[in-house]
Amino acid sequence: MNETINLLKSHRSIRKFKDNPVEPEKLQAIIESAQAASSSSFLQPYTIIGVKEPSLKEELARLSGDQPYVARAPLFLVFCADLNHIDQACRMNAIEMPKDYTETFIIAAVDTALAAQNAMVAAESLGLGGVYIGGLRNNPRGVCNLLKIPKHAFPLFGICLGYPDQSPEVKPRLPQAIIYRENYYNSLDERAAIDEYDETVSQYYLTRTRGKRADRWSQQMAEKFSKELRPHMEDFLKEQGFKMK
Amino acid sequence: MNETINLLKSHRSIRKFKDNPVEPEKLQAIIESAQAASSSSFLQPYTIIGVKEPSLKEELARLSGDQPYVARAPLFLVFCADLNHIDQACRMNAIEMPKDYTETFIIAAVDTALAAQNAMVAAESLGLGGVYIGGLRNNPRGVCNLLKIPKHAFPLFGICLGYPDQSPEVKPRLPQAIIYRENYYNSLDERAAIDEYDETVSQYYLTRTRGKRADRWSQQMAEKFSKELRPHMEDFLKEQGFKMK
Repeated sequence: MNETINLLKSHRSIRKFKDNPVEPEKLQAIIESAQAASSSSFLQPYTIIGVKEPSLKEELARLSGDQPYVARAPLFLVFCADLNHIDQACRMNAIEMPKDYTETFIIAAVDTALAAQNAMVAAESLGLGGVYIGGLRNNPRGVCNLLKIPKHAFPLFGICLGYPDQSPEVKPRLPQAIIYRENYYNSLDERAAIDEYDETVSQYYLTRTRGKRADRWSQQMAEKFSKELRPHMEDFLKEQGFKMK
Repeated sequence: MNETINLLKSHRSIRKFKDNPVEPEKLQAIIESAQAASSSSFLQPYTIIGVKEPSLKEELARLSGDQPYVARAPLFLVFCADLNHIDQACRMNAIEMPKDYTETFIIAAVDTALAAQNAMVAAESLGLGGVYIGGLRNNPRGVCNLLKIPKHAFPLFGICLGYPDQSPEVKPRLPQAIIYRENYYNSLDERAAIDEYDETVSQYYLTRTRGKRADRWSQQMAEKFSKELRPHMEDFLKEQGFKMK
């Protein structure tokens, strides 16, 4: 339909990178693009840490549950939801900012994600590729200690960036009938739609692995959710000053 | 630098729209672009409701704290964080999905935001404009009742979309020194950086309003945070099955 939409629709996670670094002028454009995203009431409640130092990336790879591509990516961006800039602004106007409640947490998390997605799109438009690393939440305290992230900020996720050294296929998404509804959240036969999708995903894996894997999506979900994920997050967020009272 | 980056960097919120509707093939491309965004472990935990029905948009405008452009936009997309598709997938595999805890909430909110930002970028690439409406969280129970949004889903925010009938300037963002750090979250003189930014924002308003307004950013933040925002969100999310225990 146009170049930008083709770019968006061709997104795949990239986990293998060439050795060449991300050029400073490209990094600059990526950060400017991130900042250009919308922000609730113009709060801009985030800080991005660009990690290039190899020993830090090694440690972050370990803290993320041993994801070696975190260390191998030339650039690792840590996206922190962060209320400190706003806190400073409030103090400059003699206001004590209430920080520790659910809505501030939602605003900060959403705005950080909007900025990150712009960064990803900008990077891809420049020939780079990357992958989101939610694994930073495996050990968020360790990440805070390592990168000196203060209270009222926390690492929401990271993005590995670099020049792709692989070209995976685009994964098929859930049928649009499940994801998009008109006017009302109408009920639909989700089971039938997911059955059909399971077939599509299974075919995707069969082709991609030359017959070695044939996972169904619903089965992947069931495996993922057979136990509670990252049960430490509630306490970590409280300690970090996002109390969710 | 390239067309996509120019597009990202020229984002402004659009609140005045021409009458013509969003063409079905453009809506289709917008939803496909949203779905192409990354999703943690491929969960795709969201549902998008496209509201076109005028009476529903009127009611949503009211529920969002009287934002008339919600009613006037030809298309209003409601982005729901939604665990129901995954829940269905788990049930198909005889797994009881644990839903009510912080990490599931974070995953759903982040992935919904990534999809939404792709939708916004796709829309803008097609000549449309829009604005995020966090105001859906002013009365999220009312929105759920109106649009029949079930448990384990909730309206995170909306986006108004249509053909722009205004051309506002791009707002200046926080200095990059505040938003971007290398290797560590280094301390910096945030006060001095915000002072400088306050001047920039003040000049922006002076020019834009021909001398009528000269708000400083820090002052806007202090006014916004003089009280707790949307204190009902914690209880609402618990009722909706995102318990954050």
